[in-house]
Amino acid sequence: MTIDPQIRQQIMDLYAAYASCIDDGRFEEWPDFFTEGGWYRVVARENYDQGLPLSILSLKGRGMMKDRIYGTQSTIFHAPYYQRHLIGLPLITRRDEGGYLVDVNYTVIRTKRDFPADIYSVGRYLDHIVEVEEGVKFERKFCVFDNDIIPNSLIYPI
Amino acid sequence: MTIDPQIRQQIMDLYAAYASCIDDGRFEEWPDFFTEGGWYRVVARENYDQGLPLSILSLKGRGMMKDRIYGTQSTIFHAPYYQRHLIGLPLITRRDEGGYLVDVNYTVIRTKRDFPADIYSVGRYLDHIVEVEEGVKFERKFCVFDNDIIPNSLIYPI
Amino acid sequence: MTIDPQIRQQIMDLYAAYASCIDDGRFEEWPDFFTEGGWYRVVARENYDQGLPLSILSLKGRGMMKDRIYGTQSTIFHAPYYQRHLIGLPLITRRDEGGYLVDVNYTVIRTKRDFPADIYSVGRYLDHIVEVEEGVKFERKFCVFDNDIIPNSLIYPI
Repeated sequence: MTIDPQIRQQIMDLYAAYASCIDDGRFEEWPDFFTEGGWYRVVARENYDQGLPLSILSLKGRGMMKDRIYGTQSTIFHAPYYQRHLIGLPLITRRDEGGYLVDVNYTVIRTKRDFPADIYSVGRYLDHIVEVEEGVKFERKFCVFDNDIIPNSLIYPI
Repeated sequence: MTIDPQIRQQIMDLYAAYASCIDDGRFEEWPDFFTEGGWYRVVARENYDQGLPLSILSLKGRGMMKDRIYGTQSTIFHAPYYQRHLIGLPLITRRDEGGYLVDVNYTVIRTKRDFPADIYSVGRYLDHIVEVEEGVKFERKFCVFDNDIIPNSLIYPI
Repeated sequence: MTIDPQIRQQIMDLYAAYASCIDDGRFEEWPDFFTEGGWYRVVARENYDQGLPLSILSLKGRGMMKDRIYGTQSTIFHAPYYQRHLIGLPLITRRDEGGYLVDVNYTVIRTKRDFPADIYSVGRYLDHIVEVEEGVKFERKFCVFDNDIIPNSLIYPI
């Protein structure tokens, strides 16, 4: 039942590096946090809790992720903003299918130029993490958000 | 002076599980994070710093806690809302009386249906944690909050 | 490449103790978190990212820090407020020059008397940490904040 301390540390480092990557705006590196066929999904808590399939974003595989990043950088018209992640203490459990389930709270604070910072997205990650040659990666990352009313569209990854 | 890494991990897991339990709305499990005679107290920083006894909530023993949960679920009239805890890095020290003192910052973000998320409670936990057969539990949990002006009454546990 | 677990723990404890010190208002202890010649700098992300030298605060050495604290306590006229730090999971790397680089997100929640809590400063610490006889200290602490619009002047340390 207990998690090997080294794996635990790798998982915590994964989250720290993930936050640093996105918040620093290095979006082109973002798909590399996932396995080749990884699944990134952003879903309202209300839908998730009832098992409803509707997501506001669901990307399967690094190809779709790269396409999304290309969109946010080049084709989607939007005002620029900064994101800042706060990620809590992770609850890590081993999955019977292999790998780990991580349940961890997050809050993303947004700053738009000339505006005060505000709470942009708040919820929890429900992630599947697997060991790969280079360390650990997300095989599945579900961002289950509490706040249906967000200050604007979600552009960048959460 | 140094804390055994295994105990430290158990304490961090306790906080992660505590947050997950409350934020997920599994309130009936909440008293189990405490010892049988555990003390849960929510107190304003202003009162706490001056050693004043007034609390906005003080529950001694799991019985009172269960009663409180029954109240929040069945008898107190209130609009539903989601809570999301962010708990910082804990400062753990060994107590002369046995067990551990944990001083750790927290913020609770609240989301009401059809409203943007807001800061609900912010402060620190000043907790006594003891080892029991099943792991570690709160013998005392003091939630010392900075913000006297809260958006509404506190219904669910902090 | 991997960080010794004991050092990692000391670094995490440093941040926990730093937050506790400031948030508890024990400002006279704040300079002791730095080496004698340590550098504390608060700089806007926009300036930092472009390598511009302008900071909103830059204190070199404990002497300047003590002077600043004296100012906040005795000479600067300001309304009192509480601060509460939330510090994320740190990304720690070893520096070629010795010591460690820590990149970690932070958010400071402010509470003024009779006002709801608000987001005061949000950004990341980019710190150099060195081992000293008593443990670890900041040789350099850069607070790179996202939010140019802050609710008021920065008085206390971030």
